Amino acid sequence: MSHSDTIRILGIDPGSRVTGFGVIDVCGREQIYVASGCIKTPPAAPLAERIEVIVRHLDEVVRTYQPQQAAIEQVFVNVNPAATLMLGQARGAAMAALVMHQLPVHEYTALQVKQAVVGRGKAAKEQVQHMVVHMLALSGTPQADAADGLAVALTHALRNHGLGAQLQQGGLKIKRGRFQW
Amino acid sequence: MSHSDTIRILGIDPGSRVTGFGVIDVCGREQIYVASGCIKTPPAAPLAERIEVIVRHLDEVVRTYQPQQAAIEQVFVNVNPAATLMLGQARGAAMAALVMHQLPVHEYTALQVKQAVVGRGKAAKEQVQHMVVHMLALSGTPQADAADGLAVALTHALRNHGLGAQLQQGGLKIKRGRFQW
Repeated sequence: MSHSDTIRILGIDPGSRVTGFGVIDVCGREQIYVASGCIKTPPAAPLAERIEVIVRHLDEVVRTYQPQQAAIEQVFVNVNPAATLMLGQARGAAMAALVMHQLPVHEYTALQVKQAVVGRGKAAKEQVQHMVVHMLALSGTPQADAADGLAVALTHALRNHGLGAQLQQGGLKIKRGRFQW
Repeated sequence: MSHSDTIRILGIDPGSRVTGFGVIDVCGREQIYVASGCIKTPPAAPLAERIEVIVRHLDEVVRTYQPQQAAIEQVFVNVNPAATLMLGQARGAAMAALVMHQLPVHEYTALQVKQAVVGRGKAAKEQVQHMVVHMLALSGTPQADAADGLAVALTHALRNHGLGAQLQQGGLKIKRGRFQW
C-alpha cells in the first residue's frame, strides 16, 4: 500500500486541567503510533491564560504532525455546574484550535470509545489503556490522558477507516489517497 | 491628543446561539463607536460547525479592526447542565479566537457591566442598551447582542482607561501611545 493511502488522525481527550492527545497513522488494517502527550493548564491562572495554553499547544501539535482528521471525546455534564462550564470552555477552545486548521472534527462518546477499543461499553479505564498499548504495540504505557487521546483516535480509525471488513461494509472508497464518503 | 493615544477595544458577549461583538476606540475621555454585530450559529448544526462559525467570524473581526485589547462577559451557570456545557464551549471558542491573536483578554461579570455602563448593578437590559446608544452617540439602537458586546467594551474602557479621573487614580501611565500598568 502506498504512502498516500495513509490517513493521520489526531485524537483529543479534553479536560479542564489536562487535555490528552494522540496521533496515529492508519494504513489499511494497520494503526501506527505517531505521538501522544498531555497539555496541562495552570489551575490557578486566569481563564484566558489556560485557554491560551490549550490553543497554542494544540496548534503546535497540528503544525508538527499535520493530521488529516481529528476526533474528540464528548464530555459529561458534571454535577458541579461551575466544573461543567469550565470543562465546556476547555473543550470549546480545543475544538477551535482544530477547526482553525480546517480539520474535520468527529465526536465520540466515552461509551463509543470503550466499545471500539475494548469491545464493550462497560470497560474500565485501565482496560482501554491496556488495549491502546496492545493495538499500537507500544513498549510502555503512556500517561492516562495521552492514552485516552490515542483511544479516541483509534475509535475514529476503527469506526470509519478500518479494519478491512469495515472498509468494504461502510461504503468508503479510496480515491487519490483520500477516503471519500 | 495624537492618534497613537487611541486604544481600540473589542467587547464580546458570548452565547451558544448568538455571540455579540462591539469595537470601540478610546481616546482620552472619549469613546468612539467603530463597529458591532452578531455572530449567529446554526442551532441544528454539529458542534464543530458551530464552533467554526464563531472562530472564523471573530478571527475576521480581529483582522479587520485590529483591536489592541479584548473584554468578554462572564457567563452564568444555567439550571440546565447541557446548556451550561454548550455555553461554555461557545465561550471557550470565542476566547481561543482572541488569544490566538495575542490579544489580552479581560473578563467582566454582567453586574460589573451594568455598574460601569448604567451606574447600578440591577439595571435592566434595556437601560444598558440605552446607555450604549447615548455614550457612543449612535443614531440607532444596535441589535441586543451587538449592544451587549459594545457594553462589555465600554466597561473595559471605563474601568481601565478613562474617564480622566480614573486615569489618574488607577495608576495608569501613557507612554509611547500605550497604556502601561
